[in-house]
Amino acid sequence: MDTLLPLADRAAGLLRARGETVAVAESSAGGLVCAALLAVPGASAYFRGGAVVYTRDARRALLGIPDAALDGVPPNSEPLAALLAGAARDRLGATWGLGETGAAGPTGNRYGHAAGRACLAVAGPLARSATLESGDADRQANMRLFGAELLRLLIGALEGG
Amino acid sequence: MDTLLPLADRAAGLLRARGETVAVAESSAGGLVCAALLAVPGASAYFRGGAVVYTRDARRALLGIPDAALDGVPPNSEPLAALLAGAARDRLGATWGLGETGAAGPTGNRYGHAAGRACLAVAGPLARSATLESGDADRQANMRLFGAELLRLLIGALEGG
Repeated sequence: MDTLLPLADRAAGLLRARGETVAVAESSAGGLVCAALLAVPGASAYFRGGAVVYTRDARRALLGIPDAALDGVPPNSEPLAALLAGAARDRLGATWGLGETGAAGPTGNRYGHAAGRACLAVAGPLARSATLESGDADRQANMRLFGAELLRLLIGALEGG
Repeated sequence: MDTLLPLADRAAGLLRARGETVAVAESSAGGLVCAALLAVPGASAYFRGGAVVYTRDARRALLGIPDAALDGVPPNSEPLAALLAGAARDRLGATWGLGETGAAGPTGNRYGHAAGRACLAVAGPLARSATLESGDADRQANMRLFGAELLRLLIGALEGG
């Protein structure tokens, strides 16, 4: 969590200054984005909630994303990240939604993506998405990296808006 | 997350040996329990998903807990932690559900509980609940402590079962 805290603190300050809120749908980042955002005192002002949705079942059960919608986007893609971000935003009534899907490692995923690849998205007044490849198979390092990059994407959207 | 990893690893080994699964509803632990459980390689075998439900709205939106059920238990209590644990278990179809509600700090909550107090619960084949008071107002330290104690409660239930 520690490497994400300065980013969460910066995002929190921007959200608070704008009177806006955020909701999160994390997959391989595993909850670290939620934890970093909640670690900032006074988080209830801007943090609406989050879902750790590593499986299709969890995406349906927690975020209400129908299988047909998941079938309509490629696995581990920016469109899937955007779908997760939008679902978190809608479900939790937040200004911004964050979505992440990736392969943290130590092995790649069954779709042929190498460990260290993640797709990230921000939904909201501005939409952003990104793909990163760390070239690293360290699962915990990738979880932190994916989480940090997702917070950076949010900060970029907040500063650009 | 680091202090939780040995506990998550131990819980993961026990779950895997039993062919069982777990789902999580965290409040003040913020996602650290999910992150620790997912940091163990092969987590998809036993981790069904998690919700970071810091607010009543999030408990309803992600876990489907009606306001009437929340009204029926005291705030920041073991019965509330058990309600969260049971909802996570049911919603995600897991063998075990984990629930946590607490005041991480730096200040106490509006119900008069001091920072560092948390209520924890495990739902499943065995039910357990516990209350802890750390006597510490360090928000991040409390988040880690709440998460670690929730994993310990699960380990105790798994070893006792």
